[in-house]
This record gives sequence, C-alpha cells and structure tokens, in this order.
Amino acid sequence: MAAEQARAAALVAAARDGDARALARLVSQVENGAPALRAIMAAVAPYGGHARVIGLTGSPGVGKSTVTSALVRALRAAGRRVGVLAVDPTSPFSGGALLGDRVRMQDHATDAGVFIRSMASRGHLGGLSAAAPQALRVLDAAGFDVICVETVGVGQAEVEIAGLADSTLVILAPGMGDAIQTAKAGVLEIADLFVVNKSDRDGAREVVRDLRTMIAMGTWPQGGWKPPIVLACATAGDGIGELAERLDRHWEWLGRSGELDRRRLARAREEISAIAVAAIRRRLGGVPGDSRLDDVAARVAAGKLDAFSAADELLS
Amino acid sequence: MAAEQARAAALVAAARDGDARALARLVSQVENGAPALRAIMAAVAPYGGHARVIGLTGSPGVGKSTVTSALVRALRAAGRRVGVLAVDPTSPFSGGALLGDRVRMQDHATDAGVFIRSMASRGHLGGLSAAAPQALRVLDAAGFDVICVETVGVGQAEVEIAGLADSTLVILAPGMGDAIQTAKAGVLEIADLFVVNKSDRDGAREVVRDLRTMIAMGTWPQGGWKPPIVLACATAGDGIGELAERLDRHWEWLGRSGELDRRRLARAREEISAIAVAAIRRRLGGVPGDSRLDDVAARVAAGKLDAFSAADELLS
Repeated sequence: MAAEQARAAALVAAARDGDARALARLVSQVENGAPALRAIMAAVAPYGGHARVIGLTGSPGVGKSTVTSALVRALRAAGRRVGVLAVDPTSPFSGGALLGDRVRMQDHATDAGVFIRSMASRGHLGGLSAAAPQALRVLDAAGFDVICVETVGVGQAEVEIAGLADSTLVILAPGMGDAIQTAKAGVLEIADLFVVNKSDRDGAREVVRDLRTMIAMGTWPQGGWKPPIVLACATAGDGIGELAERLDRHWEWLGRSGELDRRRLARAREEISAIAVAAIRRRLGGVPGDSRLDDVAARVAAGKLDAFSAADELLS
Repeated sequence: MAAEQARAAALVAAARDGDARALARLVSQVENGAPALRAIMAAVAPYGGHARVIGLTGSPGVGKSTVTSALVRALRAAGRRVGVLAVDPTSPFSGGALLGDRVRMQDHATDAGVFIRSMASRGHLGGLSAAAPQALRVLDAAGFDVICVETVGVGQAEVEIAGLADSTLVILAPGMGDAIQTAKAGVLEIADLFVVNKSDRDGAREVVRDLRTMIAMGTWPQGGWKPPIVLACATAGDGIGELAERLDRHWEWLGRSGELDRRRLARAREEISAIAVAAIRRRLGGVPGDSRLDDVAARVAAGKLDAFSAADELLS
C-alpha cells in the first residue's frame, strides 16, 4: 500500500510537470479501477478545484466534435491548457460517425497544451463512464485550465454531464427537429448555453427562434442565469469567439453568484454517494452461498419474510 | 401502524376472495409507494410462490399485445386465472401505437378470471416500474395461476423482465431486421422461448432460420434448456396452442432442474438489494444542510479529502 502510494504520487508529480504519458497512465488506471485507484485519488485531491469544466452535449449529427475542436482552438489561442474527455457511445449505430468526427480532434494531436482522451460509455444505454468524475479530478490536478467533456446527447448521459460540468453547453443544428425534442427530453433545464451549429444551413434561424420561445416560457430567478443562444458554424470557426466570451461570462456569474460552490458541492455529494452505494452493493452481495443476503433471500422466496423487512434486517 | 396493517390485511383478504376493486387498490398503493406499501408487502408475503410469471418482450410492432391477448385466451380456456401487468413506455413515439394494441386486451374486460393492469415505466429510458416486483407479489397472493408481464423491448426493460419472470418469451416478426438486432442487444441470452409472430407475412421463415442459426451457435449445458421457436399468427390464433404447450414444458423443466428455485432466489436477492440500496441512498442524503454527507462533500470540494476516503467515513 505504501509502495502504491509512492508510485501514485510519482505519477501525479510527473503529470503535473507536463508528462503526457504519466497522465495517460493515470487516467487508464482510474478508468480500469486498478488497485492504484484509491492511491491516485488521494494523491490528486490536494491539487483540485482549479480547472473549469465545460460539458458539451447534443444529438448525433449536430457537429459536437467540430464545436469542441473549434472551442479548444480558441482556448489555446488565449493561452489556456485544455483537456478533453470524449465519452464514446458503444452503440454500433453512432459509433461509425463518431469515429469520423474524432479524427478532426487530431488537429490538436501535436499540441502539448492539449490532452485528449476517449472513455468508454457505460452499457448500451449510454451514460457516462462511471470513472468520469475521477478522470476529471486527475486532469484537474494535472493543471489544465479548462476541461471539455464531450458526450453524445442520448438518454442518461445528458443529465449526468450537467452533474459534472461547471458550464453545460447544449448543441443543436437545423433540420433535425431538435429544438422540440430537446425540450421534451428535459435538456432545456440542464443547458447553461445553447449553440445552434451549422448556421449556414436552412432553418438555423428557425431553431434559434423556437429556442427563444421556449426559453421565454421558462421562469428565471431574479439575478439568475438565462441561457444565451450562440449561432455558430464550427467548421468555418464562425461564432466560436462569441461562444468563448459567453462561457467566460457564465464563469464570472458562477463565481459571483455562489453557484460554482453550490455545483461543486453537489458534485462531491453525488460522487461520494455513488462510491458508497457501490461499496454497499458489493458488501450486500457478499460471497455467494455465504452471505446474509442469501439467507434473507431464501426466506423471502419461501414467503416467510417480505423484502422490506429483509432489507431492514440486512441494514441493521 | 397497527391500523395500517389491519387495513392492508383486509384488502388482501378481499383480493384473495376475488374482489377486483380491492386488488386494483392494492396495486395502486404499491405503485404509488403509499405509506401502506410495507404493510401490504408484509400481508401478501405468506401467500406468494404459487403463480407462474411469464414475461413477454419484443420491439414495437411485433404484435406483443396480440400475442399476450391470445395467450390469455388459451390459458383461460384451460381454466387458469390470469393476471396481466402491461408496462407502458412513456415515450410519445410508441405510446400511441401501444394504446391501440391495448384496446385488444379489452376482449378480456368482462372476464372475472382476468385482471389487467397498466403500469408506468420508469423514466424516459424505459425500464420496468420500480414497483413491478412488488405488484407481481400482490397478484401472486391474490391467487392468479399465471401472471403475464408485457413490456416493450427497448433498452433496459428487456433485461429487467428476465429477472422477474419464470419464463421469458421474446417475440419477433418478419420485415424488421429483428433477429439480427435482437442478437446484438443480448436478448438471445434472456429468451426461454422465441415467438416469430405474423407468420402470414413474407420473411417469417427467414426469421426462424436466422434464429435457428444463432441458437445453434450458442452453447447449451448438458440437460439444459434450449429455447424453442414457435411460429405464430396471433391475430388468427395460429400457433398459440403450441406456445402454451411449450410454456408448460418449460415450466416442468424449471421445476425438475431446480432452475425455478434458483431464479426465484435470485429475484428475491435483487429485490432486497434494490430496497436496501434505495434506503441507504435516502439515509446518505439525509437532511440537506444537516447531514454527514454535506460535511464530507465540503471537504472533498475543498480538496482536503478524496471521495473514496469520504465514502469510507460515511460508511464507518
């Protein structure tokens, strides 16, 4: 254990010195839940809280990776070090298209100020990797100024990304009936900013108009943040400057309003709960054939006990 | 609490005497997680274990409700009392079509030996209602011989239904590329029986052939159950007799092989775990602003503690 702590500390020190290989190894170990996971998290804890986390989500085909890539370029031009976590869907349907998008990220492959990492998503329902919160903390400790988390906006992942990010950016594009579907899926509530991408296509202004109507129908607290809409054409770089500026304003608002502290506290709560619940699940399962769960389950199956009383017994 | 127990016991007694309204009230209270939930589950526990649970799943459009309805008719002709739990998707896309299907179930509306109940699915990702296991136990205690659980085969629900049912029936139809998609989604593993419905349409025999190939490629333990394929046209009633017969054979095999006990034990384990984990989640959350979770979360957010050590502290 002491050796593990020393190794983790050495890797973290190297990553903080800009060693990309050390950083990649740390993220791999975190993702694999390697025995070193706990030692790594203990080693990075003191160095956290510096990075801004920007979540980017949207349906397949809206140009998410292109927007991410353009935003990374703008942030680099402003001298910021940028980490990117791209959460791949395992779905065979969108996997192909995404792979093509990802190639565009190669623009930054030779830039030492950019670290890009793909992570597997959890199960075929999508959802972020269970290790995403920890991977974020590792990048944060490595000294990146901004971390972009990009995920496909299907199902669970959209909601989860809002739990991880300081600023959540929902990307739409014309011709996909997106504004309506987005509103239905409850994504309106998670967006801090909207980007309507592919502004060169027919219908972009209609998407903006629909979004404006929906935002107008929402209720916003006095002094609260009302999500702005940025019209962009990421392939040409149009609108990306405005996007970066709006993100800066959101960042200022987060700090000024106390919302940043509130979100980061909520994030820590969620992360700790998830770890605690996973630990309890493992403990409840115990060794098959030799656990208290097996004992109470047999009594429930035989009708001698109900499941609620069984849960009480287990937890007492 | 004593009054609640007395009320629950009276409702359960009435339901066991064939009072459909009492039964409907019990299921509603279970679904709403009413204060009476625990009292109800304690009251039904001694009367469980009698009913056979048959799960029916498949993609939208394969004729799931028609197969369910035809199977109910066959079971009724054999003198069995039948309960049906239909788990509605909340998706606006399939909701309409399903409603049309459900109307067919009205054939049984005047039959006192049939109880039909729709339950909401959990969230927009589908999945069975969290209360489905408890609703099943209520129907079981009410004395039904067979309980059919019908769910739309998208995402999580398919896998969950196999956890609830003694026999899982996967329904396919020609012209939907279903066999291949089904295999991809891992549904092959959960099927105890396959029904290829709409046998009057072109391509039905090709679906059977594809399924046979996939089943042949699987490995089946010596003396194990190899899922049979039933070709059916549920609207005309064709193949339903064979389906009922195959289900009886599966039921015999479940008992003979010890698999029934194994499945019911696994089901009880899962049900208890889910209840215990939900209780712990509530407990961890505590009262906002006044919980130990808030305290450790603040230290994690400030970088003074890592999330794993925080979880340890909470659980100790």
